[in-house]
Amino acid sequence: MGSAAADALLPLDASTFAAESRAVVDFLEVYYRDIESYPVRPDAEPGRLRTLLPDMPPEDSEPVDVILEDVRRHIVPGLTHWQNPNFFAYFPMNASTAGFAGEMLSTGLNVVPFMWAASPAATELEGVVVDWMARLVGLPERFRFSGGGGGVLHGSTCEAVVCTLTAARDRALSSLGHEAILRLVVYASDQSHCTFQKGARIVGIPPSNFRVIPTSAGSAYGLTADSVHEAVKADVADGLVPLYLCATVGTTGLGAVDPVHDLGEVARQYGMWLHIDAAYAGSALICPEFKDYIDGAELADSVSMNPHKWFLTNMDCCCLWVVSPPLLTSALSSNPEYLNNVGGEGAAEVVDYKDWQIALSRPFRAMKLWVVLRRYGAAGMRAYIRRHVDMATWFERMVDADERFEVVVPRRFSLVTFRLRQRQEGQDDMEMEALNRKLLVAINASGRAFMTHFVVDNKFVIRMAVGAAMTEMRHVQDAWELVQDKAKEVLATP
Amino acid sequence: MGSAAADALLPLDASTFAAESRAVVDFLEVYYRDIESYPVRPDAEPGRLRTLLPDMPPEDSEPVDVILEDVRRHIVPGLTHWQNPNFFAYFPMNASTAGFAGEMLSTGLNVVPFMWAASPAATELEGVVVDWMARLVGLPERFRFSGGGGGVLHGSTCEAVVCTLTAARDRALSSLGHEAILRLVVYASDQSHCTFQKGARIVGIPPSNFRVIPTSAGSAYGLTADSVHEAVKADVADGLVPLYLCATVGTTGLGAVDPVHDLGEVARQYGMWLHIDAAYAGSALICPEFKDYIDGAELADSVSMNPHKWFLTNMDCCCLWVVSPPLLTSALSSNPEYLNNVGGEGAAEVVDYKDWQIALSRPFRAMKLWVVLRRYGAAGMRAYIRRHVDMATWFERMVDADERFEVVVPRRFSLVTFRLRQRQEGQDDMEMEALNRKLLVAINASGRAFMTHFVVDNKFVIRMAVGAAMTEMRHVQDAWELVQDKAKEVLATP
Repeated sequence: MGSAAADALLPLDASTFAAESRAVVDFLEVYYRDIESYPVRPDAEPGRLRTLLPDMPPEDSEPVDVILEDVRRHIVPGLTHWQNPNFFAYFPMNASTAGFAGEMLSTGLNVVPFMWAASPAATELEGVVVDWMARLVGLPERFRFSGGGGGVLHGSTCEAVVCTLTAARDRALSSLGHEAILRLVVYASDQSHCTFQKGARIVGIPPSNFRVIPTSAGSAYGLTADSVHEAVKADVADGLVPLYLCATVGTTGLGAVDPVHDLGEVARQYGMWLHIDAAYAGSALICPEFKDYIDGAELADSVSMNPHKWFLTNMDCCCLWVVSPPLLTSALSSNPEYLNNVGGEGAAEVVDYKDWQIALSRPFRAMKLWVVLRRYGAAGMRAYIRRHVDMATWFERMVDADERFEVVVPRRFSLVTFRLRQRQEGQDDMEMEALNRKLLVAINASGRAFMTHFVVDNKFVIRMAVGAAMTEMRHVQDAWELVQDKAKEVLATP
Repeated sequence: MGSAAADALLPLDASTFAAESRAVVDFLEVYYRDIESYPVRPDAEPGRLRTLLPDMPPEDSEPVDVILEDVRRHIVPGLTHWQNPNFFAYFPMNASTAGFAGEMLSTGLNVVPFMWAASPAATELEGVVVDWMARLVGLPERFRFSGGGGGVLHGSTCEAVVCTLTAARDRALSSLGHEAILRLVVYASDQSHCTFQKGARIVGIPPSNFRVIPTSAGSAYGLTADSVHEAVKADVADGLVPLYLCATVGTTGLGAVDPVHDLGEVARQYGMWLHIDAAYAGSALICPEFKDYIDGAELADSVSMNPHKWFLTNMDCCCLWVVSPPLLTSALSSNPEYLNNVGGEGAAEVVDYKDWQIALSRPFRAMKLWVVLRRYGAAGMRAYIRRHVDMATWFERMVDADERFEVVVPRRFSLVTFRLRQRQEGQDDMEMEALNRKLLVAINASGRAFMTHFVVDNKFVIRMAVGAAMTEMRHVQDAWELVQDKAKEVLATP
């Protein structure tokens, strides 16, 4: 037997495991130490990696140091470095020492808590940790297991949305009959995340029954209850059935906030399911100064937020809370014989998380979030969030004080939206867009920062999303200097 | 500022990261070394963990060794130890040194390859590694990017099923109109995984349009083309539209195999989407002696298999291959402004994996599978699979040679299905079920092995699924001794 075979036949030998895992830790230690030396976004040519790798996997085993050397030479130079402190694009996705430790424990134990019986402590830890998060975020008691509701850890908001849409749909169809699927309507704003439209389509809602309700600067791009009410009334008059309304706390494009309480009242009036998407800004809700943003959550049926964004929890982790677990589980449960529990028939009622999600199998995500919460504590997490908010506040002030720029929408959390302002009468939208686009390209091409953009009311907006785990004040100051330098270049070019 | 805040403000300090990560590696090294000392399945009382943990997360930071000590004292005793070599339940889920290393790299780099531009090398590595796997498994060229198809790494078969069902549905509805959703029919066998029924329901197929076609011992519980043909003809006569047919290579209950080629011809005839679910047995297809089982794959539209089951790839990882990526992406794509790539407009066509799956965000799973393939090599993986098959073959022979037992369905891969046989005329099914149930309870209560069950043709069947990463021949021999001992006890009790 060759050595390839021998390695695979001892795949969890404890001492080999420890030695090779330490080599990976060493690799990552160096990566973090040197991370600022990489351009945030690579200058990558499509298809390049494929030319560097063989068409077939190796026949024989390769040593771990050879593999790590290939990661260093071939993979790292082609990555966008999301953990680089100069990453201000999209919304940052936090890694942390504790998030990594939790993921290692989960990955190492490699248990699969799809049912309580398949790993009791893993299921129960998930119940505990989602209740902890519900308290931190300030959700009403009814979203906690102790209050008759409960939570689950999904991989993404999109999954949470598909599951809640399915639950809402099946609640409606159970009384109306399946034919009524053609009459169900889902409501969101033009600022809601695209996952709602995609999710509604996945669960079979006719695409023509997805309402994108316009928002405007007048409401800071929040969805007004009046506009929802109008849309719903028109649909009801047409014989359609209002099903599901999405309220966002911290939209992706602009960080806008929908008025949860007002939307909740409309939802109640028409028997719609109200979901609160706080994917990004949910992390900020642990600070009392932001809690007003979810006033009215008691009117919602479900709430989701992503610890993998701004809560130091490595990918992936999304908290979904629901008021009525039976609505979720009656839409998503399956009980094949091979999963019936033999010998536990007398057990008290337990949570089987396979019935709270799309998939049967699932990783032990609770471990990761639990380690983060314990390692940093509630006070540490609040300090972490506030530091980013303070840095974004400083950046916004700088933009505001510079007459070449304007802040497009007032900052709510740690996202600043800005652009070069119109300087002469007669500069039209297209000209302004070209100028700002040029500025963004110049910023990103420098490799010293990475930002992304948005378009609202025909304005091309640059998004500066502060929130990478290693970002400190000096990085935000450097970014502002970079923006000024590039603006000077762009404005000087005819 | 307290120390809690200070820890969270340096969440990726390289030396703290290295020190704490090494502590976790040390913890796992001991866990693997001692793993056989734990009962495979805990004697857990529902709700116990909650009583051991506080209602609120801590306000202040806690050190990593305190957290690890709590894992050891409170969590580990309540886990079902999926990596215990005496785990023979469900289908095992493999952890390995290489799978862990790959997950550490992915988790540590924490990049989010939802679009090519969001991390080019991560997207490209995924393309390379799914092509590698397609070759190893022996799929036709048309499932590889080089052949016009392509693959993606999902978290679960369930997600792959929902995505392919959505693609098939939208292909049909694009010509028939959305109203036709009420007439679409999905076909599976009574041995297919419950995920097909759940997936069909999620995507809005009327539950009454899900056909569960019976199988029998005569075809070794494979789905016959004739029975599908009959069902389809009847539906077409009723004005319904055949949409999607599932063929399984290695069913969950019994390890049965559907005749892919024959089913493919029926699917072709009626324009149905054919999906091949090889979640478990797909790993075995890398060995030439099993390749006949996917003869006819050229007639399929999609194929999936789970490296996180039997391929040494820690949770979670599912390969999905499709012949026509545009069918998938046209059903699942979304292009909001905040994701438009600025500055890369001239780039050649690239893969944006957000349009191949449910979620927008996604982990860098390719790294994990790539490290596994390189660390063990194709030869190592084949040796690994064959060792399990050999052990299962031995176990089956022992069962067969013992007159108290019978093998229920001939073994195909590494799953043995057996039971205590009827000993006297007049012992009815209920009596036999009670006896075998008692045997299974006794086996599992010993803590020395964990098996699960299935029911087919009113027979209660015990499933011995060989396939945990650390399982060696001595564990399978011990399990057989345990089965014999417990059978003696059970048969001696009146």
